[in-house]
Amino acid sequence: MTDIETSRTAPGVFAPGGRLRDGVVRELEERWPAGRTGLDEVCRHSLLPVGKLLRPSLLLASTQAVGGDPLRALPAAVAAESGHVGSLIHDDIIDGDTVRRGRPAAHHRYGTGEAIVAGDLLFFSLFESLTQCRDRGVPADRVVTAVAAISRAGMDLCRGQSMEARLAGRQVFEVGPYLEMVRLKTAALFRAACEVGAILGGGSPAELASLVTYADHLGVAFQVHDDLLPYTSDADSAGKASTSDVRNGRPVLPVVLAHRAADACTRRAIEDCLTEREEPHSALVALTAILRASGAIEESLALAGRHAGAAVDALEALSPGEGRDTLADFVTLALTGTPPCSKALPMKPPRLTPR
Amino acid sequence: MTDIETSRTAPGVFAPGGRLRDGVVRELEERWPAGRTGLDEVCRHSLLPVGKLLRPSLLLASTQAVGGDPLRALPAAVAAESGHVGSLIHDDIIDGDTVRRGRPAAHHRYGTGEAIVAGDLLFFSLFESLTQCRDRGVPADRVVTAVAAISRAGMDLCRGQSMEARLAGRQVFEVGPYLEMVRLKTAALFRAACEVGAILGGGSPAELASLVTYADHLGVAFQVHDDLLPYTSDADSAGKASTSDVRNGRPVLPVVLAHRAADACTRRAIEDCLTEREEPHSALVALTAILRASGAIEESLALAGRHAGAAVDALEALSPGEGRDTLADFVTLALTGTPPCSKALPMKPPRLTPR
Repeated sequence: MTDIETSRTAPGVFAPGGRLRDGVVRELEERWPAGRTGLDEVCRHSLLPVGKLLRPSLLLASTQAVGGDPLRALPAAVAAESGHVGSLIHDDIIDGDTVRRGRPAAHHRYGTGEAIVAGDLLFFSLFESLTQCRDRGVPADRVVTAVAAISRAGMDLCRGQSMEARLAGRQVFEVGPYLEMVRLKTAALFRAACEVGAILGGGSPAELASLVTYADHLGVAFQVHDDLLPYTSDADSAGKASTSDVRNGRPVLPVVLAHRAADACTRRAIEDCLTEREEPHSALVALTAILRASGAIEESLALAGRHAGAAVDALEALSPGEGRDTLADFVTLALTGTPPCSKALPMKPPRLTPR
Repeated sequence: MTDIETSRTAPGVFAPGGRLRDGVVRELEERWPAGRTGLDEVCRHSLLPVGKLLRPSLLLASTQAVGGDPLRALPAAVAAESGHVGSLIHDDIIDGDTVRRGRPAAHHRYGTGEAIVAGDLLFFSLFESLTQCRDRGVPADRVVTAVAAISRAGMDLCRGQSMEARLAGRQVFEVGPYLEMVRLKTAALFRAACEVGAILGGGSPAELASLVTYADHLGVAFQVHDDLLPYTSDADSAGKASTSDVRNGRPVLPVVLAHRAADACTRRAIEDCLTEREEPHSALVALTAILRASGAIEESLALAGRHAGAAVDALEALSPGEGRDTLADFVTLALTGTPPCSKALPMKPPRLTPR
């Protein structure tokens, strides 16, 4: 950890109204215009209005950070968002979640069959977008390497989703498997976003390695923080039902930590909360009380903080500049769930060496 | 239509034991080895033992037909099969079909959540495989063009699946929308297989155009024939429940044709068969009787035959050789559902000009 705080302003070109963020939104609007029916309507409903655009932003900032032109990588940023949203659509079917980004989940509004196929369409659209980088001047060889990186990440993502269901089904209360699952389910796409951005921008192997390390830690910090939200924030503040994890019996990090430290009676109470299907809200309230009393929430925040710090440390190997600064700012974003400037931080943000 | 019959022997290197078919099977076995658990087991269960391998064979024969080396395109052939099987897994969830290729459908055996994610994994694996053609000496530029072609086909496939559900839901009895749906749902992947094979093999624009025309007609002939099976063959002969289309209310071509020609009373009977949910087997028996009496089955076979003939005609523009002969043989396969040598043909096979 080094000694200058990250910027507390929104990361310029990625803030609402910023050049690159607007570029991603414009490309999404062009690909999925309003007024179409059928599957196009389902995709548009799921993609727009946009969410935080974290993955596209990571991709473009990585291109910048290695000295590449982010405008040439814009279709790849759209691809990263398409892949992410496709996986959310399928995730919501599997988890039985009916709300996403504050609006009805795709399967809840359009039916499960349409939602399965809409997710598939977004996956194919991901790769179609990626090939368009060639039309904008990126060498074909880099595009093929990027396709390979993002398809491997997609496979990891699927394995992570499957593992998540398995950990819940078998009630596995262990830190190791939880972190392995998070690396697959969340960090893989973060890694791919940074990797693809750097590949398209012509980054060196050393720059790629730094960005992959950064993204891996960022992904873990982000998911741990995200998994804490149901137990730390107001109901449904994340644009989805806060009872989802409890209803699906998910042993997320604070639950694992509390279970590990608990006596037999409390362990039983935790397990009961995760198998309660009739009254998920009561189960959430009960589990929250157990977690808060156990210190597991602070312990989880500390772990997320350590990964956030390691993410920022990994950036030290990159050349100073807007790209690197933006990546550092996104660490703050990952730990708050909102752009850095718009909300009080729940914890001390990590720091980057001054330029 | 020209005057020499296609070969009635199995198409050499693509027959069981043939060099290219064995190459595809070996690559699938290496990618999805026995003994793994979790999602890998679900994918292996769905991929192996293999089906007819029609799409991979079309791809490799197209590479041959334009003078390319099919061994370099082998990963792309695996990709075509991965994409096809991924879509079957999702299709079976949507249709509620419990049997596929004579074994339990993935969702029936492993649960819907695992099956959704296994299909996704196969889609990502498709693109990962495709990039491996570069490692076997295919220029990166061709690989990017192939990625673009197959992702567009995947998007068409999704739109076709969605349209199929819509036609069933709204009971649309029209030939035009049925054929449009078939072109999207089935012919798109046939087209992409031939297109990708030709692109990777370095085919000329004229060769690509011929192959796309061939594949488009072949896809329609194949799907029309496939849709006829429940009404013409023994129960469940295709390795899946013959009641699926009736249970899902699908107005396939013979149903559309019979409906169009029927009086009001018979129309009502057809519609009743397609909305019967409790007794799909009785509905199938009743609908089969109506279709057989109407002449719609012969009319559908004739339409499939015309498309088969047009497919063979499109091959005339290619150079004579093993690749072109194989493609002609696959027209026969499409119209019988089994390799050309192993079953009596239900109709006169199309012919190709002698070399």
